[in-house]
Amino acid sequence: MALFSITSRDPNSRARTGVLHLRGCEIETPAFMPVGTRGTVKAMLPEEVAEIGYKLILGNTFHLHLRPGSELIERLGGLHKFMNWPHAILTDSGGFQVYSLADMRKISEEGAEFSSPYDGAKVRIRPEDSITIQHRLGSDIVMAFDECLDFDAPAEAVRASVEMTLRWLERCKRAHEPRKDTSHLFGIVQGHFNPELRDYSARHTAEIDLPGYAIGGLSVGEPEPLMMSMLEAAIGPLPEEKPRYAMGIGLPLNLIDMVARGVDMFDCVVPTRNARNGRVFTFEGVRSMKQAQYAEDDAPLEDGCPCEACRKYSRAYLRHLYTCNEILSSRLLTGHNLTFFWRLMERIRDAVRTSSLPQLRAEIAAVYAKEG
Amino acid sequence: MALFSITSRDPNSRARTGVLHLRGCEIETPAFMPVGTRGTVKAMLPEEVAEIGYKLILGNTFHLHLRPGSELIERLGGLHKFMNWPHAILTDSGGFQVYSLADMRKISEEGAEFSSPYDGAKVRIRPEDSITIQHRLGSDIVMAFDECLDFDAPAEAVRASVEMTLRWLERCKRAHEPRKDTSHLFGIVQGHFNPELRDYSARHTAEIDLPGYAIGGLSVGEPEPLMMSMLEAAIGPLPEEKPRYAMGIGLPLNLIDMVARGVDMFDCVVPTRNARNGRVFTFEGVRSMKQAQYAEDDAPLEDGCPCEACRKYSRAYLRHLYTCNEILSSRLLTGHNLTFFWRLMERIRDAVRTSSLPQLRAEIAAVYAKEG
Repeated sequence: MALFSITSRDPNSRARTGVLHLRGCEIETPAFMPVGTRGTVKAMLPEEVAEIGYKLILGNTFHLHLRPGSELIERLGGLHKFMNWPHAILTDSGGFQVYSLADMRKISEEGAEFSSPYDGAKVRIRPEDSITIQHRLGSDIVMAFDECLDFDAPAEAVRASVEMTLRWLERCKRAHEPRKDTSHLFGIVQGHFNPELRDYSARHTAEIDLPGYAIGGLSVGEPEPLMMSMLEAAIGPLPEEKPRYAMGIGLPLNLIDMVARGVDMFDCVVPTRNARNGRVFTFEGVRSMKQAQYAEDDAPLEDGCPCEACRKYSRAYLRHLYTCNEILSSRLLTGHNLTFFWRLMERIRDAVRTSSLPQLRAEIAAVYAKEG
Repeated sequence: MALFSITSRDPNSRARTGVLHLRGCEIETPAFMPVGTRGTVKAMLPEEVAEIGYKLILGNTFHLHLRPGSELIERLGGLHKFMNWPHAILTDSGGFQVYSLADMRKISEEGAEFSSPYDGAKVRIRPEDSITIQHRLGSDIVMAFDECLDFDAPAEAVRASVEMTLRWLERCKRAHEPRKDTSHLFGIVQGHFNPELRDYSARHTAEIDLPGYAIGGLSVGEPEPLMMSMLEAAIGPLPEEKPRYAMGIGLPLNLIDMVARGVDMFDCVVPTRNARNGRVFTFEGVRSMKQAQYAEDDAPLEDGCPCEACRKYSRAYLRHLYTCNEILSSRLLTGHNLTFFWRLMERIRDAVRTSSLPQLRAEIAAVYAKEG
């Protein structure tokens, strides 16, 4: 079965709905993927993540390779078995994490070398290594190894980097060849904040026949209009029939705006990390559980939300748990935020089908304008 | 219905099995109570605690009174509703926590005064206040306010303290009078490490007619034989037909040894706190999830254990979660340890019924001698 099929198109935008067929799951798109960095969506049991509706999560190649080790996970039967997640897994390539290491990394044509943030050991990840690691993990969607650049990278460096990422993609494709029937390699469009280079990267990435394409290097601190224009430049040349994945994107308005521009897949730590910091997403805006106004508030976090926190607990209790730094706070608020993101994506899919994205956007913008 | 009925007696020891009838629950004794200090058994949903089998947990008067406040909890419908625990709750009186404050407290005949460890505010808890606070929380079993003493307290101070705790008990009983039909006040035997004073305290406490009696001030660092002889001195004068509760007791061998001496109820942070520190109780002894030997161990924590961790995850995965400080580690290991304590108490109850406590003790001692 083909990985991706488009089920509807919004006549007023580039938005579409579709289905990803992965590991026996049908994943409706536009889809949001919770992040399970170290083989766990933080604070949640895998069953709880699946029960919300999610059947595709993201795992971090970089972290899992360093700890507990990708060979170890392979010997124990792969990441799905290791973390008791029978549904689909997309793994990133480690490119973005290598970039995050800043001074601790060295990038060359060959690949990346860096000191492990866990124990200082020297680690080398070439494009082929990244693919091999993702094969060991048993990923259903494998991401190509790419180079991300600092915000202030000079133009010549950007062009050279885009070219290198394209050469790396060819190497990734060759390395992935033996597994191409059981997992799907996605290429990644880079090009920094230069529209010509975004277009160039996208066109040449699209020339390499792959089951899907991602846009990387966005949401790294740039202003939002710049992010959206880079996305547009990058998405233009990508083939209509393949899924498009905006990496690391996650604020509610950004999701809507990128769906309108033709994005099908997203991942972000926003719902999970914010939950652990007591920040809760609702259709009335963000609530901070620190606030004294909830101290004696007997209402649920959000009326009509089907999550555990909203069905059984008051804001007062959730605030108490959060202010006492109780583990149950992270559990309940993560469950809520992931439920909110699921419901938001459902509303986005409905809005695409009914050509009503602008109305949904207006509603969300009214409460999320400041949050992006 | 009477609070407590004895269902079997071991002819070879003082052990007995029984049932506590509380809030529509039948709680088999000897029973272990998980500790829910701040209105949550740390890392667990209340449903998960109940599903293991527990229908009686402990809440901390001291902590809940200071944060979020007992009046607030009362206005929100009481502790059961606040924390979504429909089953029975025993609250301690705060006496032990006041003792733990060391230099920050001042004890007089009137009661205790101390600075809140949360915000430094001056707080006064007299015996009547402790009972009022526990009424606000809606506790099913209310503990009398008692004085605990430092390990090196001089003999005269101990006698004076025992006398004062007895006078406080009379004040607690009067304060509890209006609620005596809906909740049960337990007195607490003190007497430090002096067998005559333990006996004295127990006799005079037992003279005050109450639905149950506790032994306090044990397991504060004293050698185990001393602890057991103090328990024996304290339990001797207590009425046969009333439940006896050894406060703060929790290591596997101690539970067995105290059951053999006639104890019916226990509470301890041992299973929950150890779980968060990666220490796991099994019938083969304690395992530390830090140990490298589990790094690639595909076996469950403990064969035959019905907990979530043992049914679905390998030691290798659990070690990985623990070493990465993941919240899911605390969840899964707490679930396991509480399941172990439930199974241990089941085995203890069976052993009492079949007069085989010595055999069970020998089995547990073989692996838990060093753990107490």
